[in-house]
Amino acid sequence: MNDSNEGIIPSIHNRSIHNRSIPDRWFNVAPHLPEPIPPAKDPDDGGPSRVALMSRIRLKAALNQDASRETWIPIPGPIQEHYEQFGRPTPLTRARKLEAYLGTPAKIFVKREDLLPTGSFKLNSSIAQAWFASSEGAPGLVTETGAGQWGHAVAFASRLYGLKNVIFWANVSARQKKERGTLIKLLGGTVHPSPSLETSTGRMMADQGVVGSLGSAIGEAITFASTNSDYKYISGSNHLHVIQHQSIIGLETKRQLETMGERPDKLIACVGGGSNLAGFMGPFLPEWKRDALRFIAAEAATAPRLTKGEWRYDHADPIGISPLSLSYTLGRNYQLPETHIGGLRQHNGSPVVGLLRRHGIIEPRAYSEQEVFEAGRLFLQQEGILAAPESCHAVRAAIDCAVEARQMKRPETIVFCLSGNGLLDLGGYAASEEAPQSAEIEYAIATR
Amino acid sequence: MNDSNEGIIPSIHNRSIHNRSIPDRWFNVAPHLPEPIPPAKDPDDGGPSRVALMSRIRLKAALNQDASRETWIPIPGPIQEHYEQFGRPTPLTRARKLEAYLGTPAKIFVKREDLLPTGSFKLNSSIAQAWFASSEGAPGLVTETGAGQWGHAVAFASRLYGLKNVIFWANVSARQKKERGTLIKLLGGTVHPSPSLETSTGRMMADQGVVGSLGSAIGEAITFASTNSDYKYISGSNHLHVIQHQSIIGLETKRQLETMGERPDKLIACVGGGSNLAGFMGPFLPEWKRDALRFIAAEAATAPRLTKGEWRYDHADPIGISPLSLSYTLGRNYQLPETHIGGLRQHNGSPVVGLLRRHGIIEPRAYSEQEVFEAGRLFLQQEGILAAPESCHAVRAAIDCAVEARQMKRPETIVFCLSGNGLLDLGGYAASEEAPQSAEIEYAIATR
Repeated sequence: MNDSNEGIIPSIHNRSIHNRSIPDRWFNVAPHLPEPIPPAKDPDDGGPSRVALMSRIRLKAALNQDASRETWIPIPGPIQEHYEQFGRPTPLTRARKLEAYLGTPAKIFVKREDLLPTGSFKLNSSIAQAWFASSEGAPGLVTETGAGQWGHAVAFASRLYGLKNVIFWANVSARQKKERGTLIKLLGGTVHPSPSLETSTGRMMADQGVVGSLGSAIGEAITFASTNSDYKYISGSNHLHVIQHQSIIGLETKRQLETMGERPDKLIACVGGGSNLAGFMGPFLPEWKRDALRFIAAEAATAPRLTKGEWRYDHADPIGISPLSLSYTLGRNYQLPETHIGGLRQHNGSPVVGLLRRHGIIEPRAYSEQEVFEAGRLFLQQEGILAAPESCHAVRAAIDCAVEARQMKRPETIVFCLSGNGLLDLGGYAASEEAPQSAEIEYAIATR
Repeated sequence: MNDSNEGIIPSIHNRSIHNRSIPDRWFNVAPHLPEPIPPAKDPDDGGPSRVALMSRIRLKAALNQDASRETWIPIPGPIQEHYEQFGRPTPLTRARKLEAYLGTPAKIFVKREDLLPTGSFKLNSSIAQAWFASSEGAPGLVTETGAGQWGHAVAFASRLYGLKNVIFWANVSARQKKERGTLIKLLGGTVHPSPSLETSTGRMMADQGVVGSLGSAIGEAITFASTNSDYKYISGSNHLHVIQHQSIIGLETKRQLETMGERPDKLIACVGGGSNLAGFMGPFLPEWKRDALRFIAAEAATAPRLTKGEWRYDHADPIGISPLSLSYTLGRNYQLPETHIGGLRQHNGSPVVGLLRRHGIIEPRAYSEQEVFEAGRLFLQQEGILAAPESCHAVRAAIDCAVEARQMKRPETIVFCLSGNGLLDLGGYAASEEAPQSAEIEYAIATR
């Protein structure tokens, strides 16, 4: 009993899937795109300049990162420390039970962003932005959130640096996810379901009968920042600086695959604003042609920007408070149905993702709510992991690819980003529970 | 861009808090107790032998482990593999922000059982018991659960091995935690809020107006197993074999502290049935006197077994279906108030914990619901970690010890077991949100 090593042996497997190193630089996808990112611009409506407004209300670091065309951007030391403290690098694990269930010759790897302490990849950028805000002397942050994962991550990171924070939250999701609201408030965040009566934009939208969405919340957060100089306006997706922060996901994944001696054939992510997708896939972009890599973007069939949208300039909010940006859009007045997939529920998205789609680099697939919850249930039942409804889109696409690989008798390596966990989304799972299994999955199983 | 090491440096800190080795043997506390564990016995009521019934409905492995007086029990390889796969060893982290907030010279370390995939330490035993059940050819498992963490862990582990599972769940908690119920059902578990109409015992309790608790669920699970031979009856706490499984927590903690060059002064855990406490503290027991270690057991003031109970034989269920065991008890007819702390809501507990208390080895402290949620909020706000209400008892005791250390100007090392996360307990947090801060914490802060 005096031998403190009693009963302890080294880990039984040396096949480490946790490569214990973290990147010290973010990757900037901008110089690796097939053409320059189209700049934001103002509408020709004689109104005030939205572009100038954004320069005034945003963090300097965000503006500088958006303008950068360098491939590597150093990660400040304190941000690296927080990344490490909160569990980076996140594991890259293999879904062997799911593979066996599907009878596929494909290998399915999962990048586990769901394991971060706020439950999603959003923390990668909120920590960075809160640190920059603190460095620039900003007393507070204001932002928008769709499903609430970004709002949660902002409240968490704000507390780290003692910043006030105000979060406009698409009312549909705020109603569905009371528990996440409790958590944000416990962390010290102030939440306003959007459209709210807190801003002139919110009141205008309420008058017009606008249904809340990420877009309505964007409009309100911008308005709030324009009239409250204590608060800098930050975003959780769409913008180049956010995609740069999220490149940590792809950089780690690339290194982990190399360590394991694996070469990916397909990379899959869900797509809302586009930051988990572009952050995950971006670092693979320089070699994508050489390596015959395929990038698959899984979107919500109820917000089918990439499969059915138009390539044109549009505002990110319904009223036109934000600048115009060029990407695929359903139109800013598109009536988004009320779903449990708040994180993908928007009418346009990132110009970076738009460019990747336009040049045929990413392949979009749209999935119905039923299809994604069905995939989420199967993933839980096989792997024990509860995915966020947004992430279930990636799970679904991975399952479909694995079934295709079986049909083609083609061993391949599929890697998907599990962007968040679904512990605060069980209401959505419960609502979908009774729906019948879809013909596709029934077929996939029956023909094993 | 062809250099795949671009942008990657080794981890910025070499102070690893993740010792990457896991134990290959469980520690058995039995031979290290001050006296033999008092055996279970039958009441003198002329009824059938409960002890014989338990031998019939339990797993052989559980009976064998309960009888073992060897210090070390080998962990079967497949269980080790699952431990590793699901994130063991769990991290031992330091709560530096909480320390700074409290202005204490104490170091506070946290053993992170909340990071296991089902969100609590319960998985350590459910994986073991499901594997043993599978090895013994049992087609199904039946069990009881209080807060629902054990039920969740059983449903998860049962799915790993393809076992049917039936879970009797204290009705108070089942009502409070619909989301956990959804999750258990998604995993394939069958849930019955207890008292239920599924068993004769449940119907009897319903007739007598018994309020559901862990005890009522124990009575029903035993009755179910006694009439359904497909199902073996398993327990998530109290029993020696469960405490042995949970020794993985203490073995890892001991090794992690050694790796960090730290010597603990106080070990703290919450106590319900007693398995996280005894599993965490047990491996330190052989040296406790030499090292002047103090063991603190944090219980619920609404179920104050160790602070106010009597040392006597009692049944674990209200009807007397279970054998008599010797520990501290409030009496099997004690009316437990409805609280949000289902995991500690029982009238008696483990004979092992009872012995430790009786011999003055563990020091019990009882906390009110308000005191523990207040500690949970502070811990969340400082450390970003949302603790389960049960675990908040340990958080509270750790805070109190750290404040005492400040008052005594005594640097000391406090280590507590964070037994589970509170993501599915936000209803409880919300209910407590409006309660005023207690005088103790106000005092602690004011007098910093």
